[in-house]
Amino acid sequence: MSDIPRSGATATEGVAIDETSQLIAASKVNGTAVYSRAGENIGSIYDVMIEKRSGQVAYAVMSFGGFLGIGERYHPLPWKALTYDTSLGGYVVDIPRDRLEAAPSYGRDETPWSDPAYGRRVSDYYGVGGV
Amino acid sequence: MSDIPRSGATATEGVAIDETSQLIAASKVNGTAVYSRAGENIGSIYDVMIEKRSGQVAYAVMSFGGFLGIGERYHPLPWKALTYDTSLGGYVVDIPRDRLEAAPSYGRDETPWSDPAYGRRVSDYYGVGGV
Repeated sequence: MSDIPRSGATATEGVAIDETSQLIAASKVNGTAVYSRAGENIGSIYDVMIEKRSGQVAYAVMSFGGFLGIGERYHPLPWKALTYDTSLGGYVVDIPRDRLEAAPSYGRDETPWSDPAYGRRVSDYYGVGGV
Repeated sequence: MSDIPRSGATATEGVAIDETSQLIAASKVNGTAVYSRAGENIGSIYDVMIEKRSGQVAYAVMSFGGFLGIGERYHPLPWKALTYDTSLGGYVVDIPRDRLEAAPSYGRDETPWSDPAYGRRVSDYYGVGGV
């Protein structure tokens, strides 16, 4: 792999091709801050998991804790749990912190998605449909 | 912006958390090569446009031509037009090259998505539903 970004729609380009009122580029979602209902910064969006066949976003994966990936935890969240707040410049997740902390999550070296039942456990935990 | 990648699920980490049989991480889609039906490399996926409300991927944006972004063109394609080919290690698009070249596209400094009708023009061109 070279150091050339794999996706070029970064905030540094200054050209607004990555968001409209209805659409947002995946590369813009990734890295966006996540806040609690109380406005506390609880993490950021690490990645978005897409259902290959349908093209439906199944989960947004929030990362929190750690430093440069060390000690970081990844929390899959239903896409619908995220509400963008323009004044905060990030997503608000209206889920109590203790409930988020007890939710399915994984560390940097874990591969939970290789278990086909993992997504279902996440969906069941949050009480939504999913893969 | 720092130089820290906004999304960490890169191929260099070596941990298979970014793809399963059913799901794929947006950061893994971005940068993936695109081939014609004849197996010719015609470009790569630049980004994925997601419908904010539904979480449905509306378009995959293919980039082609140019060098490090200069002279590059961006072609929005319906998600369903992409079929992953494991032997090629990329997406195959079964659309004739002349039809792709005549399709709606934009250059690096253009902002077509700011026009709400743009997505509709793309969908109409390829004869599929969309935003």
